[in-house]
Amino acid sequence: MLNRLYLCSENHDQYMDFLAKARLPDLAITTQIEDANVVLADPPLFAPHIEHAQRLVWLQSTFAGCDALLANPKRDYQLTNVRGIFGPLMSEYVFGQLLSITRHLPEYQTQQAKRHWSPIPYSSLQGLHMVILGTGSIGSHVATTAKHFGMKVTGVSRRGALVAPFDDVVSNAQLHQALASADVIVSTLPSTPQTKHLLNAELLSHCHQALLFNVGRGPVLEEQGLLTAIEKQHIRHAFLDVFVTEPLGSEHAFWSHPAISVTPHISAISFPEQVVALFKENYLRWIEGTSLQHIVDFESGY
Amino acid sequence: MLNRLYLCSENHDQYMDFLAKARLPDLAITTQIEDANVVLADPPLFAPHIEHAQRLVWLQSTFAGCDALLANPKRDYQLTNVRGIFGPLMSEYVFGQLLSITRHLPEYQTQQAKRHWSPIPYSSLQGLHMVILGTGSIGSHVATTAKHFGMKVTGVSRRGALVAPFDDVVSNAQLHQALASADVIVSTLPSTPQTKHLLNAELLSHCHQALLFNVGRGPVLEEQGLLTAIEKQHIRHAFLDVFVTEPLGSEHAFWSHPAISVTPHISAISFPEQVVALFKENYLRWIEGTSLQHIVDFESGY
Repeated sequence: MLNRLYLCSENHDQYMDFLAKARLPDLAITTQIEDANVVLADPPLFAPHIEHAQRLVWLQSTFAGCDALLANPKRDYQLTNVRGIFGPLMSEYVFGQLLSITRHLPEYQTQQAKRHWSPIPYSSLQGLHMVILGTGSIGSHVATTAKHFGMKVTGVSRRGALVAPFDDVVSNAQLHQALASADVIVSTLPSTPQTKHLLNAELLSHCHQALLFNVGRGPVLEEQGLLTAIEKQHIRHAFLDVFVTEPLGSEHAFWSHPAISVTPHISAISFPEQVVALFKENYLRWIEGTSLQHIVDFESGY
Repeated sequence: MLNRLYLCSENHDQYMDFLAKARLPDLAITTQIEDANVVLADPPLFAPHIEHAQRLVWLQSTFAGCDALLANPKRDYQLTNVRGIFGPLMSEYVFGQLLSITRHLPEYQTQQAKRHWSPIPYSSLQGLHMVILGTGSIGSHVATTAKHFGMKVTGVSRRGALVAPFDDVVSNAQLHQALASADVIVSTLPSTPQTKHLLNAELLSHCHQALLFNVGRGPVLEEQGLLTAIEKQHIRHAFLDVFVTEPLGSEHAFWSHPAISVTPHISAISFPEQVVALFKENYLRWIEGTSLQHIVDFESGY
């Protein structure tokens, strides 16, 4: 049987190149959504068109986060996402930002412009406490990096089951206790009904001058709650890569806040070569009738 | 026998506090250099006074680099330095700067000031090649960090003996070949007659748009040679924490060079608490007649 793939991505040309090189058997590319039984797509780009995909059997997301698709009632297809390749990129982002602030790199840039030689006292990351929300492949990679730098690492998950490489894992119910001793907080959580506004003013009030990262999804963080937490010095600085609305509106208060660093959703991007390699592996499983990898559960949202 | 310790450090008061807490047996602090048989000192601060230390038997340096002392002909004492505590700090500095440039953090800061949302393409550190000059405790720690981030790591040492965690180690004679494929170069070398101007215009001409770090000692890098290497695009950016003359003179060309980041010798600082812990261990060995740790060889200079 010939499978018909519909491709929907901002990086269309790159994907076409890598798909051609992958030489997938019994696969034709179609430009008609209606004809496709397989879709490879960026979720936010494809979601508005999903009702036209009447023959859709399997959709491989090019992203980890599939919230744009999960918001649609259509659930009569298999959804798989991208896992295992974002962890290293997320670690690079988190530790690039973290070491940049703890080692005063922006201040040294300012000093250099003034030809000013003046060492600034600092502390090492060694012994600091990092709390990571989400103990999946991304959270675990960030935890491994934190351990490498000598930090103590607590994971937070729904059930609080201990997994390597975390020193300990607590459940959502114990989150406020974990935050009380956190020097650095990293949310890698997806956007689901359960995670919406999990990080709100009340919860953040348990923090003591913590650094906060949101690299998961915007709606996990209550935006006004963050501003309050910064004002009350519960949060010292927030590094935000994801937002409720993206791109962040030009009038948004975050842009000009001295204690907030805004980046345009780049903490981990999907490199088409890696995504196609993962799609190829899943496609070969699919035509053999083996179960797919990285299936997203429509109920839990991840 | 009562030992008499002379303390000479920019952080005099902190050292006095930690020394008091260490409760070292048979040790009195003296303020007379002439009376001291033991000295705990910042090398550049103590070096001009070393000829007055007529009873000196053992000097514990508070730094890793002892070049200020080694430049003096006096060699009739045991010299020990600080090892093993700078590696993690050096890794923080190198990867803070490295991830900051590869993940475009300063550009995002500029964009934020303009309320401008614009993702910039980037590459991961994964698969990049780092060449580290010096395979001692500092170079090895930086190598471990590089391996964690998925880099290929070549060490360079005088004899080229393979040590963990390097993927390979080459001798100085093969340095130009290693540099030809280097994406990132990190010099952790001390200042010795052998390392002076090792990184010169000729050697750097083998590089292809590499990022260069000098976190060892200033004289290892020929300053004019670096400017030539940047001009000819052999070096894309240099991160310099050490210089021939420190503080760097206010007229120096490095301050205003867009491809050079200047920091005021802060990549790894001596935290008095850690140095005193190390001094205590050595002192207890010394009064027991056991051989000291971290002895600096006056010939090799490290």
